[in-house]
Amino acid sequence: MNICGIDAGGTTTRCILVNENGELLAESKAGPANYQVTGLANVAQEIRKAINVVCKEAGINEIDVLGVGLAGVISKEDIQTVKNNLLLIKQVKKCCITNDGEIAVLGAYAGEPGIVVVVGTGSIIYGLKENGVTVKIGGWGPLLGDEGSGFWIGLKALQAIIKTGEGRNANTSLSSILMNSFNIDDLEELVSFVYQDKLSREKIAALAPLVIRAMADGDQVAKQIIEKGCDELILMITAMAKKINYQKKEIAVTGGLFNNSPFYDLFSYKLKKLSNLKAINPLYPAVYGAILYGALRAGLNLSLKKTE
Amino acid sequence: MNICGIDAGGTTTRCILVNENGELLAESKAGPANYQVTGLANVAQEIRKAINVVCKEAGINEIDVLGVGLAGVISKEDIQTVKNNLLLIKQVKKCCITNDGEIAVLGAYAGEPGIVVVVGTGSIIYGLKENGVTVKIGGWGPLLGDEGSGFWIGLKALQAIIKTGEGRNANTSLSSILMNSFNIDDLEELVSFVYQDKLSREKIAALAPLVIRAMADGDQVAKQIIEKGCDELILMITAMAKKINYQKKEIAVTGGLFNNSPFYDLFSYKLKKLSNLKAINPLYPAVYGAILYGALRAGLNLSLKKTE
Repeated sequence: MNICGIDAGGTTTRCILVNENGELLAESKAGPANYQVTGLANVAQEIRKAINVVCKEAGINEIDVLGVGLAGVISKEDIQTVKNNLLLIKQVKKCCITNDGEIAVLGAYAGEPGIVVVVGTGSIIYGLKENGVTVKIGGWGPLLGDEGSGFWIGLKALQAIIKTGEGRNANTSLSSILMNSFNIDDLEELVSFVYQDKLSREKIAALAPLVIRAMADGDQVAKQIIEKGCDELILMITAMAKKINYQKKEIAVTGGLFNNSPFYDLFSYKLKKLSNLKAINPLYPAVYGAILYGALRAGLNLSLKKTE
Repeated sequence: MNICGIDAGGTTTRCILVNENGELLAESKAGPANYQVTGLANVAQEIRKAINVVCKEAGINEIDVLGVGLAGVISKEDIQTVKNNLLLIKQVKKCCITNDGEIAVLGAYAGEPGIVVVVGTGSIIYGLKENGVTVKIGGWGPLLGDEGSGFWIGLKALQAIIKTGEGRNANTSLSSILMNSFNIDDLEELVSFVYQDKLSREKIAALAPLVIRAMADGDQVAKQIIEKGCDELILMITAMAKKINYQKKEIAVTGGLFNNSPFYDLFSYKLKKLSNLKAINPLYPAVYGAILYGALRAGLNLSLKKTE
């Protein structure tokens, strides 16, 4: 008996294979596989690649259960479409698919109830209730939401340097830092940069580390932006805690922004102060959550054995 | 001797014809003529139409000076291109073109130094200095700026109903008001509305009157949004006053949002309180500013005679 887990995301597809005792047999990576962005054919192709590698490595030709967490999947129709397609992979006997949020929160707490905060280009929070139901807060994208995310921080920084340039804001080192990073001289150039789509969501999000660095170096405008971002994330967390009647004293955090120490430190400090919760690392990455999801759906009682 | 003024905007092209004493000879309207949006051919066509009407009405076949304020014109190259094209109109002997901001501030103060605040779908502020130079603050578009505008208010309202729906915000009547206006039941539907581009910038801006109404009816979330919008506009005004060393005690306001009394009242109240300036109506609409711009460029000393 074996279980294969897949975390299919916008940047990478991660795959692991474990036996019925939760022991790791093999792992692999493949390219990006976001259902909305790269399409069904690409998703199936990348997952097939990843599966071929782990099967070869483990010397097996059958996967008893495949658990998949897929970014960009929302509707039941989408899930059924992907499932039908993955069942065409010759090794796969049984296949269970969910969204990337459910596997994140399952992995973060090894299947126990919990809350996980994901902050990268966007921001989103998942909660797993005692009854096994997953709840989401945030994740409303660049126009309506993504508060506290890399994109949100980058955009606030651009707005701040405009305000400073026009005398509506305090002086800030961000002006020279961001203009240098774009290699432009004046704010009018910035407009064509942004609106002629040279500055994608990812490129704006990539400004966030510069803003965090400026904060660490004492810039007050940068500090206000990062503090406001943390406050927005903590608002989301406290709303989630209330919504799922959360009893634990810690919250798992994951996503690129938390790898940045000054951001992580400020966030943890504010989280503790405002909500008395402690920021912790997920117990397992999301791909282990995919294993747990598959096992759960197959009626298996699985205990994970982590190997780093 | 006669002077024709054109205010070519995104919705309407306005045209007036005056004699050398500033007396109105004729006026007309034509369709939208924003250089960036509708293109050069369309701009020239609508202006030609408007000119034909006033010439016929006044019984003349020559325009001595044509002054034009054109939305969406920034660079000198753009201005030269439009100018070359307008000089092909058989009645036009001399043609002077500037942007819509310069004619707005010229009209608002009949050519004297002043500040005009334009708040409609977007927001922008123009100042005219003693030395005749025009200065701009704001107008950075929906992603980077437009603080306090109809679009800005509409977007904040959408973000607020998401936050309320997720328990991150106080309850607000905006949730049912906006959902009813879109005829949708849940927030997930809102996302596809916004991101599948069914909600254009104009449609989001069209939510602003609903938000202002909710504020007038006592909704606190709506009140916070409108108050913050007014504060942002006043920040722009005080920055402008400082930049151009403004000595007057009043500011001309124009644009769709100021026609909404609760908005106008709150804005005027805050403006007086925060900056000790008084909100007034422009002396003349922007199309009269186009006349003044034309006269100025032609070396004429023109005094306007307003007829309502």
